[in-house]
Amino acid sequence: MEHKETAPSQGSFAAGAGIIGDTDSKQGSTMTLQRLAALRSLMATQPTALAAYIIPTADAHNSEYIAQADARREWITGFTGSAGTAVVTAAHALVWTDGRYYTQFEKEADTALWTLMRQSLPDTPTMEKWLTANLDAGSVVGADPHTMSREEWTPLQNALKKAKMDLIAVSNNLVDQARVQMKDPPPPRPHNEIMPLPVKYTGKAAGKKIEELREKMKEKKASALVITALDEVAYTLNLRGSDIQYNPVFFSYLVLTQGGVKLFWGDGKLSKEVVEHLASEGAKVEGCPYGGIVDHLHSMAKELSECGDGDHSIWLTSDGSEAVHRAAAGEGVLKKPLDLISEVSPVALAKLIKNEVELQGFRDCHVRDGIAVVRFFRWLHSEIDGGATVTEIQAADRLLEFRKEEVDFLGPSFETIAGAGENGAIIHYSPSRTGEQRVIKKDDMFLLDSGGQYRDGTTDITRTRHMSGNPTAEQKEAFTRVLKGQMGIGGALFPQGVKGNVLDSLARLHLWRVGLDYAHGTGHGVGHCLNVHEGPSGVSWRPYAHDPGLRPRQLLSNEPGFYKVGEYGIRHEDLVETVAITKESEHPRASGLVGDFDGRGVLGFSTLTLVPNQWECIDVTMLDDFEIAYIESYNARVLETLGPVLEERGLAEDLAWLRVQCRRRP
Amino acid sequence: MEHKETAPSQGSFAAGAGIIGDTDSKQGSTMTLQRLAALRSLMATQPTALAAYIIPTADAHNSEYIAQADARREWITGFTGSAGTAVVTAAHALVWTDGRYYTQFEKEADTALWTLMRQSLPDTPTMEKWLTANLDAGSVVGADPHTMSREEWTPLQNALKKAKMDLIAVSNNLVDQARVQMKDPPPPRPHNEIMPLPVKYTGKAAGKKIEELREKMKEKKASALVITALDEVAYTLNLRGSDIQYNPVFFSYLVLTQGGVKLFWGDGKLSKEVVEHLASEGAKVEGCPYGGIVDHLHSMAKELSECGDGDHSIWLTSDGSEAVHRAAAGEGVLKKPLDLISEVSPVALAKLIKNEVELQGFRDCHVRDGIAVVRFFRWLHSEIDGGATVTEIQAADRLLEFRKEEVDFLGPSFETIAGAGENGAIIHYSPSRTGEQRVIKKDDMFLLDSGGQYRDGTTDITRTRHMSGNPTAEQKEAFTRVLKGQMGIGGALFPQGVKGNVLDSLARLHLWRVGLDYAHGTGHGVGHCLNVHEGPSGVSWRPYAHDPGLRPRQLLSNEPGFYKVGEYGIRHEDLVETVAITKESEHPRASGLVGDFDGRGVLGFSTLTLVPNQWECIDVTMLDDFEIAYIESYNARVLETLGPVLEERGLAEDLAWLRVQCRRRP
Repeated sequence: MEHKETAPSQGSFAAGAGIIGDTDSKQGSTMTLQRLAALRSLMATQPTALAAYIIPTADAHNSEYIAQADARREWITGFTGSAGTAVVTAAHALVWTDGRYYTQFEKEADTALWTLMRQSLPDTPTMEKWLTANLDAGSVVGADPHTMSREEWTPLQNALKKAKMDLIAVSNNLVDQARVQMKDPPPPRPHNEIMPLPVKYTGKAAGKKIEELREKMKEKKASALVITALDEVAYTLNLRGSDIQYNPVFFSYLVLTQGGVKLFWGDGKLSKEVVEHLASEGAKVEGCPYGGIVDHLHSMAKELSECGDGDHSIWLTSDGSEAVHRAAAGEGVLKKPLDLISEVSPVALAKLIKNEVELQGFRDCHVRDGIAVVRFFRWLHSEIDGGATVTEIQAADRLLEFRKEEVDFLGPSFETIAGAGENGAIIHYSPSRTGEQRVIKKDDMFLLDSGGQYRDGTTDITRTRHMSGNPTAEQKEAFTRVLKGQMGIGGALFPQGVKGNVLDSLARLHLWRVGLDYAHGTGHGVGHCLNVHEGPSGVSWRPYAHDPGLRPRQLLSNEPGFYKVGEYGIRHEDLVETVAITKESEHPRASGLVGDFDGRGVLGFSTLTLVPNQWECIDVTMLDDFEIAYIESYNARVLETLGPVLEERGLAEDLAWLRVQCRRRP
Repeated sequence: MEHKETAPSQGSFAAGAGIIGDTDSKQGSTMTLQRLAALRSLMATQPTALAAYIIPTADAHNSEYIAQADARREWITGFTGSAGTAVVTAAHALVWTDGRYYTQFEKEADTALWTLMRQSLPDTPTMEKWLTANLDAGSVVGADPHTMSREEWTPLQNALKKAKMDLIAVSNNLVDQARVQMKDPPPPRPHNEIMPLPVKYTGKAAGKKIEELREKMKEKKASALVITALDEVAYTLNLRGSDIQYNPVFFSYLVLTQGGVKLFWGDGKLSKEVVEHLASEGAKVEGCPYGGIVDHLHSMAKELSECGDGDHSIWLTSDGSEAVHRAAAGEGVLKKPLDLISEVSPVALAKLIKNEVELQGFRDCHVRDGIAVVRFFRWLHSEIDGGATVTEIQAADRLLEFRKEEVDFLGPSFETIAGAGENGAIIHYSPSRTGEQRVIKKDDMFLLDSGGQYRDGTTDITRTRHMSGNPTAEQKEAFTRVLKGQMGIGGALFPQGVKGNVLDSLARLHLWRVGLDYAHGTGHGVGHCLNVHEGPSGVSWRPYAHDPGLRPRQLLSNEPGFYKVGEYGIRHEDLVETVAITKESEHPRASGLVGDFDGRGVLGFSTLTLVPNQWECIDVTMLDDFEIAYIESYNARVLETLGPVLEERGLAEDLAWLRVQCRRRP
């Protein structure tokens, strides 16, 4: 799944639309006005009256997707898009969001009350600039410190201070208070059942992971490590949840010391199954109530401060919330707050490099996922060829049925993007279940971006097909340029340790040559039975600040595209594994190696995704010999891998179709 | 001229070796010891005793090349390399430098007293890390604030403070004091005559440039702009100097207010010629003594502080020295230092985009420079073919003679890199005039990187030729891969506004495919009759923090390479101009354009350098049709442009040689 990149301060992984639910009708004006009035009254009656209040789209864990319990910006604005930051002052109410959501905003929000700040336009001031230019010196701006990371908080606070203003932390969220006042309280935070993920899937016991983190803590002289990102907690303990749609995570915090591990979750009572799982993996974990984290950090800070040993501090990840940073430093509790270690999380760096069991799982689930997608496309073509009416939603539903037949499938890894014709050009399109339904037509290019969560891995694949195999010359050329870009990445060799950024232009090169481009990055990291977008590496023209440089055993997407607004969209997305390459490797360029970058080592990719492209959409005259051989060898591998499975399952028609798709060049 | 990139804190544009003068013998041990003792005694007797003293390779203007008056690190260490930072404590004396200089350091420095810190090795601690790990808490580190930019000072100070240490400014340089004590005072700072550069070369009168800067100052609400970089002073006033070798600049500061312009230079007395030039260009400039800058900034700060108008501040460039920042803020003079604007300089951004006169000058001087280089290579081949003995130094000298015959030539733009055989693989090699001389042999690859300062522009060209046109297959393949990379940049189209970084991998791609690379960036900006390395744009895998994104009318070098240590080096370097491309442009890809990046505009390059490559070194079978046409069309253009000039001058033999070199593919 492609993600359009937005500035980190605006929420780094912007999610697809509709995760909060469809709202096709505008929120009533009166209701919006009442909600705003309630918030403004709370702002005015704070101990220090607030000149402005900031409502980001965020939860306390810097999650990409949020749960309904955290959908505060949606409630106050009526705008349901997945990205945006609202700012309310006595006189103004504004939302900063990006180009994906301008139309949706105007449809959903009451524009008499709310002003859209089009953040993609160069003339739009940033929130920071707007605040400093529009508030009086001496003004105090408030925000819930749980909803902003320290990386976001500090620069904003510095900018406000420079303008003689201040940013203060309002821990009791004002939107939540307004909801309670208006008898429309936020839904309770989910604490759904937690599921152990056995070591046969994860490859490393929780006890071992904890042991390794404790080693890193010793190196850093950190007496405690506070893990706040939900996927990092899940990874460390080999547990999965379902509190946030598409992300198998659970609301929690984890605090490690040399002596113990505390899991802040629900009411703190772990199920027998979880307790047994943790014990069997050598992890002694104490359950604590989710809400107790701040108090616990306060008392830890006090203890540390009293032991007086300046050599030991608390380690937090720099994208942890401002609230957690303050609590861990003992702010408001200690006279002199503690110094913290605030850096990229050791858990993020550990799970970036997949172990052999995880890698094998990724490879295995891509076989099953490939079967599902191949069966789906065979079905779709035959339906449409036969004159049946299939809508985008029906296609997405049918695809899910095929995936559900596969072993260890848990659910989609994100909301399926099924865009026919002009809808394919909307980068973050997802078909709506309400309103008019778009039928997939014979002369449509059809873009399908979907993925699955499996116990042994996560998939994310985009294929674009012309429904009657008869694209226009322009579509064929664009399809081929995007494919050449994808092969430019897929077939690249490069030195180990370079950041993913340096690869980005290799994917754009063939589009750039004719003045075309795509407005999103080329690749994102992928979690193992975890979030489909995972940091800190990625492939984009924008720097990934915490990318430690690419190493073997990472998972990335490889997904260039091209979008002609109002007509069609093309995206080719594979997941790839980073592989150390020597002369002996199975890589199309391996035998040509004459150096290993002076000992740095050679890195390349192995493509995991197994679904062929449509020859009818490829202009073979635009390909060089390497590229033709690349496609033919990929197709042969797909057929070799999926063919026997289809045969074994007796799916003769699917196999016949796959054979045709995987043929050599026409 | 290629520059190896080093971390900004280590001096960003590392210059070629030998600029300070050749020293082939090691400094006497006793002398080194005496110098160190003198420095240590000064450190101990400061008002606050210093636990460490830092001696960067730097002057007060953040210059890439320094004058003898600033060669403090050389004097104290005996090591003459152009990059390195020395640190002296009571017990230790260390120099951090990069891989180019390890051998030279061991040859020149007394390694019984001085420790080499190999900063290219991952295990070598940075200076910051070493200081915090090796000094006791409470230690005070000293440095001359004129020799560090604020961008370097602040992070070091923060790191030391975090370790309970401090960094203090010692304005009276301790090495200079030691030199005086030892009766070996530093040479006086040169203030050579200043030369006006008439508007027919610069294209914009100094008065107009000042007017435009004043507009920018109004936008920023800056009541003064302090220009500290020497090339920025020269650019603004259309003046050139000769205080630093190869760089036509003069030691000075420039302070602009809405009411006046003060030039701090020499004793402050400007020559009649300069005064008349400035008056004729509508610039009213007051001369002030160079040494008066700090006092002047102090009084400006006082005035501003007294007028009490918080809306006006002083604008400095962020790479200005810590000393100038402190003076402008009124530190030590005011109770509450002023807030400063410290950002990329508006002069740097202005001179980045060349005007039409400057561009035409660049094009014109590249014709004359091409004539000189073509004549040189014809001469060199005929000498060597005829059995003459030509050393690298003799070749460099002869090349200079050819350039001296050209109109408006002022001198070399950097020290010529003339590397035969194995010397070509030393990226920053320059032949030494002393010691054994390397003769250029018939079976040598010969790498020649050189350039000229002309009144109408600056050149920088590298060509690599095999002296008998008979390279090995391996050399030919490497030569061709480097050339393919250069054409990958030269022939690229891309969206306006992207940073140069995104282009870097296009130059490496063909080397990467076989595990080869080069340890330097791909391109640097070039000044107009100014420094051959000019910021803030560049093409490299390392981010150029202040690159505002590429726009039409910039000058860049395009210089991939490959170096086989102990055997040969290959580098192909052209200067290129950034050009806005439409379907109608003269660019090999123009007619294929189908988009303009959604209105962002298409950017490409036009190559200014005019010297053909040797077909004998090119493996034509590795080229695609576009690349063959690219070379043939370049050769045709070289012949069309230089041919008539050679003809007019009656240089028939040179013309005949050029005709053969510029032929179509064999």
